[in-house]
Amino acid sequence: MPYERASIQRMHGYVPGKQPGTTETIKLNTNENPYPPSPSVLDALRAVPAELLRRYPEPLAEEFRAVAAALHQLRSEQIVAVNGGDELLRLALTTFVEPGSPIGMLEPSYSLYPVLAAIHGSPVVAVPARADFGMPSDFAARMNEAGVNLSLIVNPHAPSGRLTPFAEIAELARALEGVLLVDEAYVDFVDPALGHNLLPLLREHDNLLFLRTLSKGYSLAGLRFGYGLGAPSLIEPLLHKTRDSYNVDVLAQRLAQAGLRDQPHARQTWNHVRSERTRVGEHLAAMGFQVLPSQSNFLLAQVPAGGPSARELLTRLEQRGLLVRHFNQPRLDDKLRISLGTPAQNTLLLRELAALLSAASSA
Amino acid sequence: MPYERASIQRMHGYVPGKQPGTTETIKLNTNENPYPPSPSVLDALRAVPAELLRRYPEPLAEEFRAVAAALHQLRSEQIVAVNGGDELLRLALTTFVEPGSPIGMLEPSYSLYPVLAAIHGSPVVAVPARADFGMPSDFAARMNEAGVNLSLIVNPHAPSGRLTPFAEIAELARALEGVLLVDEAYVDFVDPALGHNLLPLLREHDNLLFLRTLSKGYSLAGLRFGYGLGAPSLIEPLLHKTRDSYNVDVLAQRLAQAGLRDQPHARQTWNHVRSERTRVGEHLAAMGFQVLPSQSNFLLAQVPAGGPSARELLTRLEQRGLLVRHFNQPRLDDKLRISLGTPAQNTLLLRELAALLSAASSA
Repeated sequence: MPYERASIQRMHGYVPGKQPGTTETIKLNTNENPYPPSPSVLDALRAVPAELLRRYPEPLAEEFRAVAAALHQLRSEQIVAVNGGDELLRLALTTFVEPGSPIGMLEPSYSLYPVLAAIHGSPVVAVPARADFGMPSDFAARMNEAGVNLSLIVNPHAPSGRLTPFAEIAELARALEGVLLVDEAYVDFVDPALGHNLLPLLREHDNLLFLRTLSKGYSLAGLRFGYGLGAPSLIEPLLHKTRDSYNVDVLAQRLAQAGLRDQPHARQTWNHVRSERTRVGEHLAAMGFQVLPSQSNFLLAQVPAGGPSARELLTRLEQRGLLVRHFNQPRLDDKLRISLGTPAQNTLLLRELAALLSAASSA
Repeated sequence: MPYERASIQRMHGYVPGKQPGTTETIKLNTNENPYPPSPSVLDALRAVPAELLRRYPEPLAEEFRAVAAALHQLRSEQIVAVNGGDELLRLALTTFVEPGSPIGMLEPSYSLYPVLAAIHGSPVVAVPARADFGMPSDFAARMNEAGVNLSLIVNPHAPSGRLTPFAEIAELARALEGVLLVDEAYVDFVDPALGHNLLPLLREHDNLLFLRTLSKGYSLAGLRFGYGLGAPSLIEPLLHKTRDSYNVDVLAQRLAQAGLRDQPHARQTWNHVRSERTRVGEHLAAMGFQVLPSQSNFLLAQVPAGGPSARELLTRLEQRGLLVRHFNQPRLDDKLRISLGTPAQNTLLLRELAALLSAASSA
C-alpha cells in the first residue's frame, strides 16, 4: 500500500520545458531573457564572503524588500520575497484556500495552476478565454457564483502574450468577492508607450496580489527569485505564517537586490526583446503564421494551414538544436510558443522554419 | 473580513532564532557551524558564469543527487534535493498527510513541526519524551492507535542533543504503520566512535525518510540546501509531484555539490566541534549546570539552582553581545541551548557565564 495521499497518487506533476545540460542548444522554449543579467549582479556574486554562507540568511529579506519598495513606491509591508514566483502561487493557495474549496482561472493559462490545485486538493473553476484569449466579461460573476476565494490570472497572458488593460483588471478586482492574484511574470516586456501600470490599484483594493519575478525581466531564472505585492493584510500571513521561515537564500537576496537596482541594464534588455518581438512577428506572419499580438517575451504562432503540424515543426526544430514549446491541448495544439532570443538566434529560427515549410510544400 | 483561511488566522508563525545584521554579535543561538565552508565552495561561487544565472536551473538537481548518491552509496532515485531541510518537512506533510489527519512527534522537539501541522490543518499527536529526552517505548503504538501516517522525529534530538541508537530506530520503523521521517540535521556531529549509521535501514523499510541538511555540517546555512533520502516509492512523489518544479536554484546546486565533495574539510570542522562540545560541557558542569549528553553541535544546560534564571542569563548574555537560545515551555524554561562556537567564542561565553553566576551569588 503506498503511503502517499490518494489525491497525490492520482495527480500528474508539472512538466517544465526541457532544460538541456549543454549550452549549444538554442532555447526558445522557456521564456528566459536572452541577454545576460546586469554586470553588477556578477559583481555582487564575486563579493560574497564565506561568512555570509555560513550563517542563516535574514529570514524576512528586509534589504531586498526595501529596494523593491523604493522601486515601486510602496511600503515594505506590501512586499514578500519568494523562492521563484511559483512559491507565491503555492503560498496563495495555502493561505487563502481551504483544501477542497475551488480556485479560479482562465483556460488556457499557465499549466502549473491546475497542478497546484491538485496538490492542495482543490477543484479548478476554469473559464474559457475569449477567441482572442481575453477575459470573458462574466469571469467575476462565475467565480463568485462558484464560491471561489482565489483567482489566478497571468497578465500579459500566457501562452498568448495578450495584455488585459488596467480598466478591466480594476473592474475584476472590484467585482470579485475573493482574492485576485495577477501573475505579472512578463509585465516588464509591455511596451512602455502603453503606460501600463496596475500597481496604483493597490490603493483601492485589498483583495489584489501581484506576482513579479526576476527570472525573465532581470535574466535571473537560475536564481529562483520573485516577490509578491499587495495590501499589508494579504502580505502579512504570507510573510509571517505560511512561508518557509528561510525561504530565500542569502545569495539570491543579494543578487536580486543588485539586479533590481540596475534598472538601466534591465530596461535595455526589454527594449531589445520588444524590437525583436516586432521583427520576428512580422517575418512569421509573412511566412503564413497567424501571430497573436504579444506584450510578452514570447509569441504564440498558429502554423500555416496545409503544411507540417505544430508538433512536426517542434520535432524538426529540435533535431536542429532549436527548442520551442508546444502544448498538446485544445486551441493550442496548432500553435508554437516561441520565446524571443537574441537577434542571431531568432534569425536562425526564422531561417529553419522557412526551410521546413518550403521543403514540405515542394515535397 | 479577512481573506485568509480561519485556521491560518488563528495560528502563530514559526519564530526563528535572532539573526542580527552585524557580524560582531557572537551567535550561539541557531546551531550554525562556527567554521567557514570549504574553500572549494567559494571557488565554485566565483566560477559561476552569467549564463548559468540567466537560464532555469536543472529542475531535478541531477548532478547534486548523483554526488549525494555516491557519498551515501545509494541510488539517485532515493534522493530529493530541497530548499533547506524545512522544505522536506513541509513536503512530507503535503505528500503523506490528508489535511485534518494527524501527524506525530515527540515533545519537546523542533518547534517548526507544530507550525507546519497548523498550516496544513492537521492536529498533532505529541508524545512526551522520557526524562532523559529519549523516545518512550510506546511511541509507535500510540501513533498507530491515533491513525498517524507521518511521524517526525529529530535524531540527534533537538533541543537536547540526545542520540537515539540504530536498534531503537529500526524497531520504530518496523512498528509504525505510517511514514517515519528522521530529521538528521545534526547527525554529522555524532562521535564516529559510535559507528552510528541509520542509512542501511533503507534496505529493509519502505516507510523511512531521512532528512539531511548542508546548513550545519557543511557551514552553509545561508544557502538553504538539504536533501531527503528514502525508498524510491517515497521519494518519487516528492520529486515529481509535490515539490515546486524549480525548488533549488543553480547557485545552491553548484555550491552544495562542492561542499559535499570536500569531505575532509567538513569532517575537520565536525572534529573541532566535538572537542569543544566535551570541553564546554565539562566547564559548564563545573559551574553547576546540569548538561545533557549531546551528540549534536549544541548543548542543553540546566542553570544552577538558586542563581539567576535561564531567562535572566539569556538577557544578560545578549547585553554582552552573546546570543544563546531559550525556550519558554515546560521542561525547557530552566535551560539554555548553547550552540558550540569557535574555541575563542566558547571561552568568552564560559567567562561571561562564570561572571554572571558569581556576581549573583555575591549580591
